[in-house]
Amino acid sequence: MREIFNQVKKIEYKGPESTDLLSFRYYNPEEVIMGKKMKDHLRFAMSYWHTLTGEGTDPFGQGTMVRSWNEITDPVEKAKYRVRAGFEFMEKLGMEYFCFHDRDIAPEGKDLEETNRILDEIVDEIEKEMKRTGIKLLWGTANCFSNARYVHGAATSSNADVFAYAAAQVKKALEITKRLNGEGYVFWGGREGYETLLNTDMNIELDNLGRLLNMAVDYAEEIGFTGQFYIEPKPKEPTKHQYDFDTATVLGFLRKYGLEDKFKMNIEANHATLAGHTFQHELAVARINGVLGSIDANQGDLMLGWDTDQFPTNIYDATLAMYEVLMDGGFTTGGLNFDAKLRRGSFEEVDLFYGYIAGMDTFAKGLKVAAKLIEDKVFEGVIEERYSSYREGIGKEIMENKVGLKELEVYAKENGVRNIKSGRQELLETILNKYIFN
Amino acid sequence: MREIFNQVKKIEYKGPESTDLLSFRYYNPEEVIMGKKMKDHLRFAMSYWHTLTGEGTDPFGQGTMVRSWNEITDPVEKAKYRVRAGFEFMEKLGMEYFCFHDRDIAPEGKDLEETNRILDEIVDEIEKEMKRTGIKLLWGTANCFSNARYVHGAATSSNADVFAYAAAQVKKALEITKRLNGEGYVFWGGREGYETLLNTDMNIELDNLGRLLNMAVDYAEEIGFTGQFYIEPKPKEPTKHQYDFDTATVLGFLRKYGLEDKFKMNIEANHATLAGHTFQHELAVARINGVLGSIDANQGDLMLGWDTDQFPTNIYDATLAMYEVLMDGGFTTGGLNFDAKLRRGSFEEVDLFYGYIAGMDTFAKGLKVAAKLIEDKVFEGVIEERYSSYREGIGKEIMENKVGLKELEVYAKENGVRNIKSGRQELLETILNKYIFN
Amino acid sequence: MREIFNQVKKIEYKGPESTDLLSFRYYNPEEVIMGKKMKDHLRFAMSYWHTLTGEGTDPFGQGTMVRSWNEITDPVEKAKYRVRAGFEFMEKLGMEYFCFHDRDIAPEGKDLEETNRILDEIVDEIEKEMKRTGIKLLWGTANCFSNARYVHGAATSSNADVFAYAAAQVKKALEITKRLNGEGYVFWGGREGYETLLNTDMNIELDNLGRLLNMAVDYAEEIGFTGQFYIEPKPKEPTKHQYDFDTATVLGFLRKYGLEDKFKMNIEANHATLAGHTFQHELAVARINGVLGSIDANQGDLMLGWDTDQFPTNIYDATLAMYEVLMDGGFTTGGLNFDAKLRRGSFEEVDLFYGYIAGMDTFAKGLKVAAKLIEDKVFEGVIEERYSSYREGIGKEIMENKVGLKELEVYAKENGVRNIKSGRQELLETILNKYIFN
Amino acid sequence: MREIFNQVKKIEYKGPESTDLLSFRYYNPEEVIMGKKMKDHLRFAMSYWHTLTGEGTDPFGQGTMVRSWNEITDPVEKAKYRVRAGFEFMEKLGMEYFCFHDRDIAPEGKDLEETNRILDEIVDEIEKEMKRTGIKLLWGTANCFSNARYVHGAATSSNADVFAYAAAQVKKALEITKRLNGEGYVFWGGREGYETLLNTDMNIELDNLGRLLNMAVDYAEEIGFTGQFYIEPKPKEPTKHQYDFDTATVLGFLRKYGLEDKFKMNIEANHATLAGHTFQHELAVARINGVLGSIDANQGDLMLGWDTDQFPTNIYDATLAMYEVLMDGGFTTGGLNFDAKLRRGSFEEVDLFYGYIAGMDTFAKGLKVAAKLIEDKVFEGVIEERYSSYREGIGKEIMENKVGLKELEVYAKENGVRNIKSGRQELLETILNKYIFN
Ligand SMILES: [Co+2]
Ligand SMILES: [Co+2]
Ligand SMILES: [Co+2]
Ligand SMILES: [Co+2]
Ligand SMILES: [Co+2]
Ligand SMILES: [Co+2]
Ligand SMILES: [Co+2]
Ligand SMILES: [Co+2]
Repeated sequence: MREIFNQVKKIEYKGPESTDLLSFRYYNPEEVIMGKKMKDHLRFAMSYWHTLTGEGTDPFGQGTMVRSWNEITDPVEKAKYRVRAGFEFMEKLGMEYFCFHDRDIAPEGKDLEETNRILDEIVDEIEKEMKRTGIKLLWGTANCFSNARYVHGAATSSNADVFAYAAAQVKKALEITKRLNGEGYVFWGGREGYETLLNTDMNIELDNLGRLLNMAVDYAEEIGFTGQFYIEPKPKEPTKHQYDFDTATVLGFLRKYGLEDKFKMNIEANHATLAGHTFQHELAVARINGVLGSIDANQGDLMLGWDTDQFPTNIYDATLAMYEVLMDGGFTTGGLNFDAKLRRGSFEEVDLFYGYIAGMDTFAKGLKVAAKLIEDKVFEGVIEERYSSYREGIGKEIMENKVGLKELEVYAKENGVRNIKSGRQELLETILNKYIFN
Repeated sequence: MREIFNQVKKIEYKGPESTDLLSFRYYNPEEVIMGKKMKDHLRFAMSYWHTLTGEGTDPFGQGTMVRSWNEITDPVEKAKYRVRAGFEFMEKLGMEYFCFHDRDIAPEGKDLEETNRILDEIVDEIEKEMKRTGIKLLWGTANCFSNARYVHGAATSSNADVFAYAAAQVKKALEITKRLNGEGYVFWGGREGYETLLNTDMNIELDNLGRLLNMAVDYAEEIGFTGQFYIEPKPKEPTKHQYDFDTATVLGFLRKYGLEDKFKMNIEANHATLAGHTFQHELAVARINGVLGSIDANQGDLMLGWDTDQFPTNIYDATLAMYEVLMDGGFTTGGLNFDAKLRRGSFEEVDLFYGYIAGMDTFAKGLKVAAKLIEDKVFEGVIEERYSSYREGIGKEIMENKVGLKELEVYAKENGVRNIKSGRQELLETILNKYIFN
Repeated sequence: MREIFNQVKKIEYKGPESTDLLSFRYYNPEEVIMGKKMKDHLRFAMSYWHTLTGEGTDPFGQGTMVRSWNEITDPVEKAKYRVRAGFEFMEKLGMEYFCFHDRDIAPEGKDLEETNRILDEIVDEIEKEMKRTGIKLLWGTANCFSNARYVHGAATSSNADVFAYAAAQVKKALEITKRLNGEGYVFWGGREGYETLLNTDMNIELDNLGRLLNMAVDYAEEIGFTGQFYIEPKPKEPTKHQYDFDTATVLGFLRKYGLEDKFKMNIEANHATLAGHTFQHELAVARINGVLGSIDANQGDLMLGWDTDQFPTNIYDATLAMYEVLMDGGFTTGGLNFDAKLRRGSFEEVDLFYGYIAGMDTFAKGLKVAAKLIEDKVFEGVIEERYSSYREGIGKEIMENKVGLKELEVYAKENGVRNIKSGRQELLETILNKYIFN
Repeated sequence: MREIFNQVKKIEYKGPESTDLLSFRYYNPEEVIMGKKMKDHLRFAMSYWHTLTGEGTDPFGQGTMVRSWNEITDPVEKAKYRVRAGFEFMEKLGMEYFCFHDRDIAPEGKDLEETNRILDEIVDEIEKEMKRTGIKLLWGTANCFSNARYVHGAATSSNADVFAYAAAQVKKALEITKRLNGEGYVFWGGREGYETLLNTDMNIELDNLGRLLNMAVDYAEEIGFTGQFYIEPKPKEPTKHQYDFDTATVLGFLRKYGLEDKFKMNIEANHATLAGHTFQHELAVARINGVLGSIDANQGDLMLGWDTDQFPTNIYDATLAMYEVLMDGGFTTGGLNFDAKLRRGSFEEVDLFYGYIAGMDTFAKGLKVAAKLIEDKVFEGVIEERYSSYREGIGKEIMENKVGLKELEVYAKENGVRNIKSGRQELLETILNKYIFN
């Protein structure tokens, strides 16, 4: 089979001093960190959409990406070519996982029957490549947002036909995810939100969103799909207000609709920041609620108000993200999916490699720093000391729910407040820098 | 008793054409709207803190407010004078409610015992004035954020002594709220949040916040306080991340800690916008979850990133807020508390009247517009039509949970998607304008 | 000729009480306000691009707009059809102006020669329609941002060929603007900015931007184009940082490159807010610097971080915008161009009418309120009084540059500071409301 | 003389591996980088205000800072004690510069005469300490924002008495800055802005701001003060709109009022970000306009909308800032003033040292990385190549102003656009990381 990215060889680990731009400096897949290989900590995944179907359009301009498949006119042939391109790309980067939406991998046909038939045809190709390479599916999903029919929502559309259509699409996406042994299935509600409250019944819409998720859970059980379900929160864009605003919002929603045991979170860095949170915040909220599932690794530009989905290169964010993952015991079904797209000006094929190397090396370095912080119990030690008053005396009684307002008033009148200590934020940031720089 | 605001007489309703700057143009307390008096719809409340203790300081400058009590040096005398000022002020505006924090009404003493003694002394004065005037307490609360002891939080402090102190303060605040027949009690977690995750155990902190609220619920029951509990969400400021970020976040929290039946929301307009939501959004989320309790009426400056707490003068926001309140059946225990402060440059006493008139007239006008929108079923009609496909056929089956993914796939394959209609946002905004302008 | 928007008749003024959704309630073109007809105050213009070529795509979804020309496959035929559609649309709305980019009105050919030939062919059609209807060209412009060649900028491209190509495009656009008697010519630097400073020489890029503008000024003189040049500031989007950030930035730029007498501003409401300014702020900065030229009327969603370009329906913004225009003596060459697009969910043709009616009525009402505020000297009176200390004594000497630090120190030591008065913001907002509501 | 910070010894450089929390890991003052000592590159300065008079208040809470001078009640005695504390602090950190406002160093008296007398008394103390230690004054300034008289502005007040008072204060501040051999003088217009346009005459206000600056320039000449004048831009806070929004705005202002040769910029990192710019952007704009003067080094929290003034610990920002400084040839009169305050929770005296060590080490490391990037011509090389088409052929003719639109059209028709290359942003960010990590 003809090599597609023939200007690039397999990307090898060559260490921090490497001057080869097409090598890893930190990502050393077999290197063992805290008893586990880097590749098993990080579980990197390729995002099918940005990598293989992204064209570099933006709201003010046409596509820029120069790709060898641009000239193929038959959409099914193009889809098959992309399958080969994607697996070759993953092999060259040593990535063991990928993620897709139904509509990334295959074009729509004239109706749902034909669409599903084409989809099956492409899934055949993917299955072959998976067998050939050993690459696995981290998660699948259905794109229920791009088609014009979803203009007012999918599960939350004001039109029941659209709900039905979305349900049919989810059903098929679940089936192919199961067929490909996907370890998870993601719901990102790209149109599940509203544009204006003047024409919106938020109550019906949220109930219907809950219904679709419950139907999906039931159908997964019926067909024996045992992968993990995820919700990917995002606060806005494309809709003015997206219902899955952030992790805390989704937790409230899941609890309301009896879904709290069925779903974990797929946290995207740039969605966190659009919601006014740090990436670490969203991960930490998920962790303490037992729903830290998987990560869409990218970064935003905090000066801009939209989802820029940049390849992650910020070492602070990567370190603190991996810190949360390690504190949570590491990924089980989840992984690090690069939901990141090249800048529109980075339009050459080799930029795809530079982008992924950027992201993989940044997270590899972040993993190493985070592991060292944990081995040295740096922040854990600080926190243990800082909250120590809750391990004895009145603090212990509070934690054990043994006292109420009356007992605490007696205590406060007798003891007042003693021993408040500095939070030492500046020192802690210096220590974090020390671990990053050295 | 000497009149304090002696340059201002009772503010009267004089109608839209009034040229008297110290009159109401829209707020006509006894006027009946949708079968209820305006004053009973709006239940306006004076915020004790901004109105009586606000000095006009900001992070870059000293106080500016010129007040007749500025020269009183004894703090208890000053507190008593302010009680008189506050009730005279409410009488002149025809306000029937007020709200306070414990530390607004009385200064702290050398220890908690003395502080509580002073508090009781001032509550005596307030009680007298309430009897004299018939003015009622909408809600009370405890200020567990200004004192340096709360630097790392109150219920969420890393120091157990501080938790105990906050608990004691809440106990006392509950007692005086009960004594004054307060119709509600608010928790605004001014320091319940974090500055940096590097030194924070979010899990313990949130558990402890749940604990304090449960203790308060238990103690209220013990002493027979039957007022409504509220949480007032705010996303940030003073802490980097406040735990009660927005209504959706708080709903998730309440459900986790078994408090969902005990609390409603006190929604502040400027807190909504700091969280990236419209005021109406927060009210609507509360409404559809059955927790629309009370309102802190103000407005922010969306070009600025902090809580400006301005007197509300935007007719769109006031109309849509009252729309949500009316759609919810109107206030029961709640009301419209002006958690608003004069601009630092509006430092004369008469500006207090201009500020309140601004807010009261804006909400009175908003009430009238909202009532007309509801009487004409403007948006309800649009919504009824827009979601009509859920009242028959496949839509009805979805709503009644009679179908799953399989049935919906069959339906979608047969029917595709029909009859998606325009959302008509531009037209609906024009219609809203028509109701506002006419 | 076949009627295109055959479901809609000419939109007539029917007054505030009109229940006809396809009528004007405030825009009464011949009504005289402050001695001038409304239509001559407002000089409304249709934006060719959003109105005729907007498809309703967004970064997450395909087009939604249902248009009678969607099925025409030949691009030149489609362009000609759109000319007819546009003029019929303007006639039905009674709009007397339009604005265009070269690439809106005609498709690109295989090379610049052919592109220009097609452009001329379409300009012929437009010229005929202009003659037939009397509709005029408010301003023309060149789209130097959509084509992939402009990926790194046009005048500010790192590639000199691209600069040359942009120059050629501007030349042609100037020629057709002159041919169609355009009253102005706009530069909006859609790609004149940078993505990252790591690869950018901002100095060369800004110098080159200055060069292109100077070349355009020279060429206009050469061909006798006497229309007004405008720059349209925008702070970001599509590039991370746009060089024409806001009016103040552009003023500094024009002064540096000797262009301050040649250019005025085309202020867009949503660009103002993206820069962190109110619409009125940008207009006021332009006004006091003598460069308030023309307006792109729309509104953004301040909860969202991108250019939503909504039809303007906010009466406060429209009133204060018209206030600035009237204070500036009214438009001369400029006008109100609706650089606004229908929400993606408003995809029916009739929504185009609802959108324009929304915007035109809002600005008509805003004009009426602003005129009344000026006739009553409401804010002018406040300002005259507020700054009165600069009309006598030491204030007058300051204004006449007769004193320096030494004299002022002597004065300050003798007099201190007297008579600082409240800024009365709350009262002024109430008065503004009074003018809007009545 | 009694040691004040007696728990801390002189902070020494101990290298990257140091485990001494009170040591420098990167700041090695005498180490030579690119031919100059680190201390002469960085010219670190102590901010008098945050360091010595900051109390840890915020809009929701009282002061927290535990300082040995808290108990001194006489304000003049306290001021003298702080002089000693400040110089001991600088000695211990090895800082060679400080910066102050008039009102930081000395309390106000009952009138301007007395205030100036007290100021002189404290300046005597400072002068003595400067002689004793060799520490120098980087710049002085006048605080014309905290006092209530400046509620509506200083130079831009609506009241002429206030303008005069501000002028008198600037005069005195210039005199003491000259007396202490200050190398510069800063204008930060804390109240030079507006709250609402409804009561503001922006034209008069900006003219008066220009007048005050011209008066200051004249007076400096008169008294022979030859230090550099700076303006410190900030977009908002405390006023809604500050006139000195950002560097570009100030450049336009200076050009309008004939001040462009007299002023450079004092760029504050957190002010840059509040304006929607990166720190590097503001420095680069200043650099290419020849006005990069001095730096207020701190960092903001991009999730928060106000000036948090945190100690800088972000290595990316510090590296790119030092990159701009080095590209500009290094500081001449300017330096790095830590306009940074401890978090409210970092209230112990030792935190002052942790904060300064954090900032100094971060900038020392940033300097080292930036120097290496320049020595290796990393980004310069990229830029030289990227813009190479402007050094020959048509590009050269453009740069030499030899061609106009006509010649460029001819060229474009003949040549089209060739050789647009990827901008390589992802690769460049990887390379930056390589320099930071190694
Ligand atoms: Co994602
Ligand atoms: Co994203
Ligand atoms: Co509030
Ligand atoms: Co508030
Ligand atoms: Co525009
Ligand atoms: Co726009
Ligand atoms: Co500063
Ligand atoms: Co600052």
